[in-house]
Amino acid sequence: MSDEIVFRPIGTVRSPYKEPGEAVRQSVSGNERGKIELLPEYAEGLRDIDGFSHIVVVFVFHKSSGASLMAKPPGDGRVHGIFSTRSPHRPNPVGVSVVKLERISGSTLEVRGIDMIDGTPVIDIKPYIPVLYPRDGVRTGWAENRFSEG
Amino acid sequence: MSDEIVFRPIGTVRSPYKEPGEAVRQSVSGNERGKIELLPEYAEGLRDIDGFSHIVVVFVFHKSSGASLMAKPPGDGRVHGIFSTRSPHRPNPVGVSVVKLERISGSTLEVRGIDMIDGTPVIDIKPYIPVLYPRDGVRTGWAENRFSEG
Repeated sequence: MSDEIVFRPIGTVRSPYKEPGEAVRQSVSGNERGKIELLPEYAEGLRDIDGFSHIVVVFVFHKSSGASLMAKPPGDGRVHGIFSTRSPHRPNPVGVSVVKLERISGSTLEVRGIDMIDGTPVIDIKPYIPVLYPRDGVRTGWAENRFSEG
Repeated sequence: MSDEIVFRPIGTVRSPYKEPGEAVRQSVSGNERGKIELLPEYAEGLRDIDGFSHIVVVFVFHKSSGASLMAKPPGDGRVHGIFSTRSPHRPNPVGVSVVKLERISGSTLEVRGIDMIDGTPVIDIKPYIPVLYPRDGVRTGWAENRFSEG
């Protein structure tokens, strides 16, 4: 249970955001372009990903300094448990974002709607399959009306 | 770039699925009940998560034996690049699933729609905020019509 889990980056995010404070609160509000530069040895693993309009990126909040069990989200004056927020200061600083896939050149993915900062280590890329993400009967607690589309 | 990323489990999945083959292909097709038993020291981090109907679970495919850059998804006779599939045999065996949150008792989350096997190490829990998951203009390549709702 206390076993360590060891991952290695498969690539790096290139983003217009250079520091944590610059990144938008969530990718849905932004339309920023960026790149995911995979290590060349992983290029083969991208086969057929060009059929997907969006991808799920699993990454590390590498500039996160120290975990906390509580967080105060931007735009919300209240403190919440870390697992009910998207704060980077998590026990395991792992992030998940869906971005639009615009173009692939070799082992580089050109994406849009990025909310990671430049230099972010990427640990996985998955196809985005909307039916796995429910739409009906969803409640979003304190975040209700705090995230808006477009 | 080759730096190791070290995570530690924050809890464990309790699931009716005991072996990889038993787990449903994706949580949307199943309605199975399970539990996420967080380590007691993380209980405080769950504050306000009861306002969310669904959570995003980030976990480790701990029974995954060896990575491959190609995978042949069940129900699909063709080989695809690993990053365009949800195969557990990924360079970093990390999984992401959205499940319904039914009840919280202490540091245990009772959930529904689970597709992880029993004993799966959990590395993070996040609130599920649907607006971050696009619906319109989404293409799903080879997976088109392979995943169905309900």
